[in-house]
Amino acid sequence: MDWETVKQRLDALLEADKRIELRGALRMLNRVDVAQYLSELDTEKMLKVFRILPSEISSDVFSYMDDDQREKLISTIGDQEICRLVDDMFIDDAVDFLEDLPSDLVKRVLENVSDDTRKVINRFLSYPENSAGSIMTIEFCAFPGDFTVAQAMKEIRRTGVDKETINTLYVLDKNGKLTGTLALRKLISADDDQPVSELSDSNFVSVGTLDDQEMVAETVRKYDLLAVPVVDKEGRPVGIITADDILDVLQDEATEDIEKMSALTPSEDTYMKTGVFTLVKNRLPWLMLMLVASIFTGLIISHYEEILTAPALGSIGVALTACIPMIMDTGGNCGQQSSTLIIRGLATGEVGPGDALKVLWKETRVALLVACALAVVCFLIQKFIFGIDLSVAITISLAMIFCVLFAKILGGLLPLGVKALRLDPALIASPMITTVADTCSLLILFVLATAVLL
Amino acid sequence: MDWETVKQRLDALLEADKRIELRGALRMLNRVDVAQYLSELDTEKMLKVFRILPSEISSDVFSYMDDDQREKLISTIGDQEICRLVDDMFIDDAVDFLEDLPSDLVKRVLENVSDDTRKVINRFLSYPENSAGSIMTIEFCAFPGDFTVAQAMKEIRRTGVDKETINTLYVLDKNGKLTGTLALRKLISADDDQPVSELSDSNFVSVGTLDDQEMVAETVRKYDLLAVPVVDKEGRPVGIITADDILDVLQDEATEDIEKMSALTPSEDTYMKTGVFTLVKNRLPWLMLMLVASIFTGLIISHYEEILTAPALGSIGVALTACIPMIMDTGGNCGQQSSTLIIRGLATGEVGPGDALKVLWKETRVALLVACALAVVCFLIQKFIFGIDLSVAITISLAMIFCVLFAKILGGLLPLGVKALRLDPALIASPMITTVADTCSLLILFVLATAVLL
Repeated sequence: MDWETVKQRLDALLEADKRIELRGALRMLNRVDVAQYLSELDTEKMLKVFRILPSEISSDVFSYMDDDQREKLISTIGDQEICRLVDDMFIDDAVDFLEDLPSDLVKRVLENVSDDTRKVINRFLSYPENSAGSIMTIEFCAFPGDFTVAQAMKEIRRTGVDKETINTLYVLDKNGKLTGTLALRKLISADDDQPVSELSDSNFVSVGTLDDQEMVAETVRKYDLLAVPVVDKEGRPVGIITADDILDVLQDEATEDIEKMSALTPSEDTYMKTGVFTLVKNRLPWLMLMLVASIFTGLIISHYEEILTAPALGSIGVALTACIPMIMDTGGNCGQQSSTLIIRGLATGEVGPGDALKVLWKETRVALLVACALAVVCFLIQKFIFGIDLSVAITISLAMIFCVLFAKILGGLLPLGVKALRLDPALIASPMITTVADTCSLLILFVLATAVLL
Repeated sequence: MDWETVKQRLDALLEADKRIELRGALRMLNRVDVAQYLSELDTEKMLKVFRILPSEISSDVFSYMDDDQREKLISTIGDQEICRLVDDMFIDDAVDFLEDLPSDLVKRVLENVSDDTRKVINRFLSYPENSAGSIMTIEFCAFPGDFTVAQAMKEIRRTGVDKETINTLYVLDKNGKLTGTLALRKLISADDDQPVSELSDSNFVSVGTLDDQEMVAETVRKYDLLAVPVVDKEGRPVGIITADDILDVLQDEATEDIEKMSALTPSEDTYMKTGVFTLVKNRLPWLMLMLVASIFTGLIISHYEEILTAPALGSIGVALTACIPMIMDTGGNCGQQSSTLIIRGLATGEVGPGDALKVLWKETRVALLVACALAVVCFLIQKFIFGIDLSVAITISLAMIFCVLFAKILGGLLPLGVKALRLDPALIASPMITTVADTCSLLILFVLATAVLL
């Protein structure tokens, strides 16, 4: 049954006010889909349907709803209901939710949750944004290394049902320091009286609470982990980050890089949810910057234009003017291609500032081949389609070679330089590259043309 | 201990040929790090160190090594060793490895693995590239719904150690069809004689063997899964895909989109590993295409240039020529900003072709605000810095407003149109947008200028 059909049937039940039937129908859906159904209703209907939900699924659905709707819910439902919903959420989801809530509602929520939850939430809210601490969950299983397998299994049975994952268990020393990880599959096939420390793997990977989420994502990806433990300064585990949360981090970081590379300030929210004024604020400063930069390009053109339109040069001026877009576009495009590959390489950790020489050597060879091919095509077009003088066509083609060489080398090295200065290449290098390559390409064309043709 | 220190100590042991000590030292490392250490050695040393590795970790290390090195290893080690290494790999890793191996080595590997492994590998190799079937692993736990908890636990103990994850178990009906999923944490805290079907959750999400990996990634991300079952046409589970494999898919897809958006044919390999000729092949066709397109822009300039340089117009021609880069760049940049947001929205599934009207309305409002701000700055610069005639400055600023409006609306709608034609917006819309916006911006400027000023 596709989503449209599902929605129509639910809508029909809602329309006819058949609440009990609707409750039954909603039981048949995955909780993520229930949340999606709610997100497509207006506020009044959404509140009505949410109240119909069986209580055992409503807290799950609540954790999948979007922030706007949760805010509306929190401001209409009773204190007891708030307590139940937030207490049932995984701590990391609850914290995410509270971070985006207006402060009066945060206060109301914190007043109504249990003491334990409040304490943990407050600790989480103190971690810096985008740190490992702020995205971790505290629902994990750990026990001392001298526990036997039987003791460990008993502990898991007692507490495991509430854990986000028990695929991997964590083994501690006397001081609570993490000394090893233990796959549950190993535990359940081991002898009852074996100490867990003997089964555990001490070559584990962990991250610190203050590590940046991008670095955590890279660690999880590199080591193929389903969950990574987060340890405090003393090496004690305080939480875990599961691979499904890392998926969101990776997706967001990629979106952020893509936006920066198109000269956009990255938005907190998705396109449809971002307001017009925020969109303008994210775009305008970059456009202004590039507008001002393009004035210099204009000045170069007018400077040489006066020389090139001198009657003595005749049709040469017209030919050169006509190839301005070609030279500018090609320079800009070549620079963008190279810088994109290097910026992405820096983001995935494959390329580093130390690789400058290797990049230079590679880009130079690529640029030479690309430049020659483009120059030949450019020459043929100039000479045989537009019938331009041989000497002018050769000059333009030569300029093309230099422009491509310059743009590709600049595109390869500028991101590395920006990275070496500990700045963000996607933010600085990408918007700069086209403007710089454009301007320099024009300069190359005009300098070469005046030197050769005048 | 940081990585450089680790490497120095290992290098020292290798240099002094202290093999037993080196073996001990390597035991202390995570297997991914051992693989990384190997990747930084030359072939001869790499082979030497690999032979030193304790056999219980060598197969793990093997599955983390890169393809080039595995190829070298496979071509030097004995048949028995190949059999052990490949049999010990998870099937999905083994298949990935074989897909990139030269065919004579594939033959040698397949001749030397066990019959079971060969059969499974051959089935996997027949799934289309980038399909769910090609990235799944077959190591998962499933049992009939009438199994009791005790029977299920026994089965897991018997077979679970070799499974990639047993966090989630799969419950089948009599025909082997997947009817529910069961969290291991629920199983271990349940009564021994309860049937597993009573504990299982029938609202599970699954994907088909032929589904595209991008769609699988979106499903796993949307439903916050740690593993998703892959079912055949009859609904029988044939494998699972774990979130750690999805991380690689997401990373690769984001890289691919970023490359396409910068007019690059996506490369199979990372920048450093891609040869010069492949890089040229990925870049040149797009540059040629845009070179040819920019000739039209050149033609527009020369057409109007002849009119604008007529002596009757005096300094107007020079002023208009000087603002060509400004108008062209702003048009291109505005178009790129809008198209980037829409293309990314399409990739993450937030925006669809049906949202055209919403996008049009949003982009129009954003464009009006952005255009007015840019036009004011543009006017001030023209009038007060360059001292251009009032009527010319107003005309240029007016042209700016129309260009921004046009470029932003085009940038918002073109990707949706391309998507509606079932083509890839990142591949088609992105490289087109700047060229089209550039050309049309110039046309707008010249048409307006000749209409108002002549």
